[in-house]
Amino acid sequence: MVKFENLGERKIIEIIQKQLDIMPKLPIPFGDDVSAYDIGNGNLAVLKTDMLVDKTDVPKGMSLWHAARKAVVMNVSDFAAKGVKPKALLVSLGLPKVTEKQVKEIGMGLNAGAREYSTYIIGGDTNEALNLVISISLFGIAKNGKIILRSGAKPGDIVAVTGFFGKTAAGLNILVDGFEAPAEIRKALVESVLMPKARLKEGLVLSRTNAVTAAIDSSDGLAWSLHEIAKSSKVGFLIDKLPIAEEAEEFAKINGLDPLELTLYGGEEYELVLTIKPVLWKKAERVVKKIGGKLFPIGKTIAERQLVLKVNRTKLIIEPRGWEHFKNSNV
Amino acid sequence: MVKFENLGERKIIEIIQKQLDIMPKLPIPFGDDVSAYDIGNGNLAVLKTDMLVDKTDVPKGMSLWHAARKAVVMNVSDFAAKGVKPKALLVSLGLPKVTEKQVKEIGMGLNAGAREYSTYIIGGDTNEALNLVISISLFGIAKNGKIILRSGAKPGDIVAVTGFFGKTAAGLNILVDGFEAPAEIRKALVESVLMPKARLKEGLVLSRTNAVTAAIDSSDGLAWSLHEIAKSSKVGFLIDKLPIAEEAEEFAKINGLDPLELTLYGGEEYELVLTIKPVLWKKAERVVKKIGGKLFPIGKTIAERQLVLKVNRTKLIIEPRGWEHFKNSNV
Repeated sequence: MVKFENLGERKIIEIIQKQLDIMPKLPIPFGDDVSAYDIGNGNLAVLKTDMLVDKTDVPKGMSLWHAARKAVVMNVSDFAAKGVKPKALLVSLGLPKVTEKQVKEIGMGLNAGAREYSTYIIGGDTNEALNLVISISLFGIAKNGKIILRSGAKPGDIVAVTGFFGKTAAGLNILVDGFEAPAEIRKALVESVLMPKARLKEGLVLSRTNAVTAAIDSSDGLAWSLHEIAKSSKVGFLIDKLPIAEEAEEFAKINGLDPLELTLYGGEEYELVLTIKPVLWKKAERVVKKIGGKLFPIGKTIAERQLVLKVNRTKLIIEPRGWEHFKNSNV
Repeated sequence: MVKFENLGERKIIEIIQKQLDIMPKLPIPFGDDVSAYDIGNGNLAVLKTDMLVDKTDVPKGMSLWHAARKAVVMNVSDFAAKGVKPKALLVSLGLPKVTEKQVKEIGMGLNAGAREYSTYIIGGDTNEALNLVISISLFGIAKNGKIILRSGAKPGDIVAVTGFFGKTAAGLNILVDGFEAPAEIRKALVESVLMPKARLKEGLVLSRTNAVTAAIDSSDGLAWSLHEIAKSSKVGFLIDKLPIAEEAEEFAKINGLDPLELTLYGGEEYELVLTIKPVLWKKAERVVKKIGGKLFPIGKTIAERQLVLKVNRTKLIIEPRGWEHFKNSNV
């Protein structure tokens, strides 16, 4: 008996896809962050489903309200990366034994997540299950050909991110593994885990610039996200500025951890990772600044299919590994 | 601690809905079989999500292939009741430890379900969970105002169903509780559980007749479905022909069971329950016959808000109860 853990998520998806007939003229290939259906007149219906499971997505210290909100944010983040506005969402719940108070908390968390991104929950379904399972489906509309795929990066394109990395990995170390941190940084680190933000505004304004050639969110970690774009776009990356968050750097120093590890392989972050045409870089920077967001260049796209991190004079290979699901749950 | 079992699915949904802000001009109210979003030009995006959980939806004797196919059929059935063609579907999986062979079986079952109703799986997501969880999302397009709701039944309307009832309840008795049945009826009874059919063709042709005033599928049982339409439409029903399947009647006789119980309160059936304008009855009957389907009148809609079954000269009250989730699972 091959265990799920041994088969792996990627292998499971591959096996399932092999069994599926592919829709003719599918507008977005399998494996990108969202799916789409051509509704005519140059428009696509954009669809996304992603499931939060307490066992792997809800660390110790995360309330049901936070978990329910996070389930929404996880999905919105994928729409953000593709530059698509979510119009409506559905919720399918699998619930273990719950109290009225707990159900209320879940409902409030779902609504908070939806309203934060100016959308609404318009339907759903409830079931009994051993785990808490929150499966969200998003719906949106986009112009055909205007969705930012993972596959458009070209050598020379600037690699950019919408924020700094490493805080959630540090926050998970605190919540799950009992690491310590001084109060002044602890709050920011824990908050990054409990209250993830989808970069929807950034994704929407960037998609209108025509500057972005490829994008993905960083929910599986910065390194993994870069590898996904590299694979889909058949390019490599030379990263020369590591976007490490100040608090994460401080946390690493205090606890004797490798800041590189936290930044590249932490995961559970929801920043966007983008490749941008150099001629439109200024424009991209300007529109993001205008809506109060951030856009940092961290390197460039190269033709050689390798991922290299250049720190000072050292060159390191960025490995294709992402975050490990944590096994603790408070539910 | 109030248990899920005590709170109940209905109560949980009610609590959650109370926490939600309602989208302005929501085209279909909460609680109908599908949800919708107004995409302009008189069109609605129709959305549906329903989750299959092994614990409650997969009886002993049902393979993973059957379970995966059923997850699709459950969702298509709701579209069928509303007269909407599913255009594309997404799958979100929660998987316990599985072998490669099992994953393959799930993929093949999902594809079989989708292709059976001329649609395709266009995306999805996989997660680790304690239960097997298959959450399906359907997408379709409908003309605004053309979706058959639960709320349109009027006194005088004919109540009709697309097939006979009681086989799945009997089939579950065989699979789950070890009841016996002669070979000549056993196959049909077990098959009704393992290979449910969504009445999509029937729903689609009926929706074009303008004859149908209200509709629902019968996944929670005939009695429950009638009560749902009655509640939404503020009407009652006088049922004078009990649509019992021959095999179920035979099974009841052999096992000393109440055929009424099997027919009304069995559940897990996917026939459509509809109310139809008397002046358009012939037309409705004709279009369904033309596509090889069935349409049986079983009674009529009345103004008094009660549900009465008239068998011979006896009048019985049809109770608002549905099927009980079974607790056995083979996964």
